[in-house]
Amino acid sequence: MTDTEAPIVLSERNADGVVRLTLNRPRAFNALSEAMLAALQSELKRVADDETARIVVIAGAGRAFCAGHDLKEMRAAPSQAYYEDLFGQCTATMLAIQRLPLPVIARVHGIATAAGCQLVAMCDLAVAADDARFAVSGVNYGLFCSTPSVALSRNVLRKQAMEMLLTGDFIDAAEAKARGLVNRVAPLESLDAEVDALIARIIDKPRVAIAIGKEQFYRQVETGIAEAYVIAGEAMACNMMDEAALEGVQAFIDKRPPAWRRTG
Amino acid sequence: MTDTEAPIVLSERNADGVVRLTLNRPRAFNALSEAMLAALQSELKRVADDETARIVVIAGAGRAFCAGHDLKEMRAAPSQAYYEDLFGQCTATMLAIQRLPLPVIARVHGIATAAGCQLVAMCDLAVAADDARFAVSGVNYGLFCSTPSVALSRNVLRKQAMEMLLTGDFIDAAEAKARGLVNRVAPLESLDAEVDALIARIIDKPRVAIAIGKEQFYRQVETGIAEAYVIAGEAMACNMMDEAALEGVQAFIDKRPPAWRRTG
Amino acid sequence: MTDTEAPIVLSERNADGVVRLTLNRPRAFNALSEAMLAALQSELKRVADDETARIVVIAGAGRAFCAGHDLKEMRAAPSQAYYEDLFGQCTATMLAIQRLPLPVIARVHGIATAAGCQLVAMCDLAVAADDARFAVSGVNYGLFCSTPSVALSRNVLRKQAMEMLLTGDFIDAAEAKARGLVNRVAPLESLDAEVDALIARIIDKPRVAIAIGKEQFYRQVETGIAEAYVIAGEAMACNMMDEAALEGVQAFIDKRPPAWRRTG
Repeated sequence: MTDTEAPIVLSERNADGVVRLTLNRPRAFNALSEAMLAALQSELKRVADDETARIVVIAGAGRAFCAGHDLKEMRAAPSQAYYEDLFGQCTATMLAIQRLPLPVIARVHGIATAAGCQLVAMCDLAVAADDARFAVSGVNYGLFCSTPSVALSRNVLRKQAMEMLLTGDFIDAAEAKARGLVNRVAPLESLDAEVDALIARIIDKPRVAIAIGKEQFYRQVETGIAEAYVIAGEAMACNMMDEAALEGVQAFIDKRPPAWRRTG
Repeated sequence: MTDTEAPIVLSERNADGVVRLTLNRPRAFNALSEAMLAALQSELKRVADDETARIVVIAGAGRAFCAGHDLKEMRAAPSQAYYEDLFGQCTATMLAIQRLPLPVIARVHGIATAAGCQLVAMCDLAVAADDARFAVSGVNYGLFCSTPSVALSRNVLRKQAMEMLLTGDFIDAAEAKARGLVNRVAPLESLDAEVDALIARIIDKPRVAIAIGKEQFYRQVETGIAEAYVIAGEAMACNMMDEAALEGVQAFIDKRPPAWRRTG
Repeated sequence: MTDTEAPIVLSERNADGVVRLTLNRPRAFNALSEAMLAALQSELKRVADDETARIVVIAGAGRAFCAGHDLKEMRAAPSQAYYEDLFGQCTATMLAIQRLPLPVIARVHGIATAAGCQLVAMCDLAVAADDARFAVSGVNYGLFCSTPSVALSRNVLRKQAMEMLLTGDFIDAAEAKARGLVNRVAPLESLDAEVDALIARIIDKPRVAIAIGKEQFYRQVETGIAEAYVIAGEAMACNMMDEAALEGVQAFIDKRPPAWRRTG
């Protein structure tokens, strides 16, 4: 099913701990086949276990970010049990992004459709090329994008999500930014520079602060506000006891850069 | 209480299965009297039982969409039990919209105030004339729009909802679109054309896909994300096993229109 | 710790029942020390017990609204138990704002950072000077703004909250308005006039309607929609039985101002 002998998910890692995962089935618009989902999940697990990794970028090879599930593969095995397993595997991969103790940034160009749009929505942050287009288009072939709707409805307002889900229509990058699906938009030729600029704003923060903060963020947002504050208060007290925060706060008081911050 | 001998809710149905329900108390700005709520609920039930219905449009006769509850009727019977029953009846009607297995589109012109604004918020989608104005104005006469706030706060951001609820002030159609309360805005003279354009983007999708998708959408959005994915995954597997989806996906693979799609 | 002999929170009250609480540690950018939190909580309690109070405005003395927790004080006592107590005290103060039966408006100028930004988010409404800037900047010194994230994520969309939390970067007043963190923006020289204009839209509404409405708003927004409607329906029936609403609705029917409305 892969286009070449190359791995179905390319993983690169730079000296700063930035891990770039590239969906690599360009001729299939990086469709999320079972093999692709397994490879992506495996790479995410590897990152989770790597104490030196700091930020993950998810990108797509070729002309598109991701066109969603592999419909040919799906159509070949019509059984309720198979589909439940498949969506279960997809869900596990999507939740692995949210549960990763590092920020995950979607780098989006071309199209992001159906589960491809879901992938954007599940990342903590997203940067899009100005030619990027987003749709939850399953309804066009009779398959409402239900699992993508879980992620989409937690990114954008309700009626805007519903219109996309019921029509299957595309929105462009500017609209995606206005609606909260992506954080930043840049011309395709400077997309990587824009991703790097965002990374630069995050990479010098202590790993532990981000790990604690991200974990509590997604936990507290699902509860009532009183319980949310209990979760957040415990997380923040724990974070404050960490050496990086003690040094960071002391440095702030002393009006000097913290010892853990690399000077540029 | 009605203006004429005509039914208090007009129901028209075209050959494509588009059901247009028109609140028909124009001289009372289509106020939601008990009789109006009962008639609307009855029409919604009729649509729910009609396998050939595809989309519902809710509109208002005369110069306004809907001015909310019938205050004269309400004021005439001051008892806690009566009011609880009345708001219970209103809630049942509003939830019937959300539980209908078809998309419901609000076609809004003139004013949509208090429970009229709630009605817009409860519809899956909304298209407004550019002269439409929206308010949750009960607070102006000492009655905070509590039941409308349930719907409004599930459409727009919190502080924006709070400002409308505390001031009772109107927002115009452009603002309503920017805040997510309506999907599209058009000049009054092309309002029906805009509604039709939106319908055209939905009507050719299989009924079952939309029924499954809409049902799971409102269910998953109320739960934590892990549970939401379980709900959505089951819905999507079930949807995929339907003949329309199997044909739709096969047609997509074959690069041909699905057999169920009418060619224009 | 205070700059002067003046109280750490100034409280002024005008004839209309508008209570203005001013954080008064200008040289410390009104940092939320334990003493500040205690004083603020005490003033909020005083307002809650004052039947003649109608609206609360929270402002900051000097060049900023509020720069968050008092880092020097925090750094001096590094213990998990101390920090949990501190964030617990902060949470109690923040929730007291939400539980107050009056509208609370943040009047924001200069910076509102970390728990200062949280304070803006916890108020029912916010008006900002056009030079105001907002950040959840703890991550810059290694302390992810977890407790502020509780409030922020209930005001703005998820990815926009995440970008602020992960980068610590400022957004300006226009961006804060576009994202839903503040309601209105005005030049600094007309900031008080803008706050007064907002107050004028609220002050003539019956206290009981607002008390009932605000209480149910924050309760219903945390539940599923069916339960939310039960909460809201009971609140609204109760509100309707109040004399102010009965008079207000009757006055609306009679096309006259309600007896409780002061004529301007």
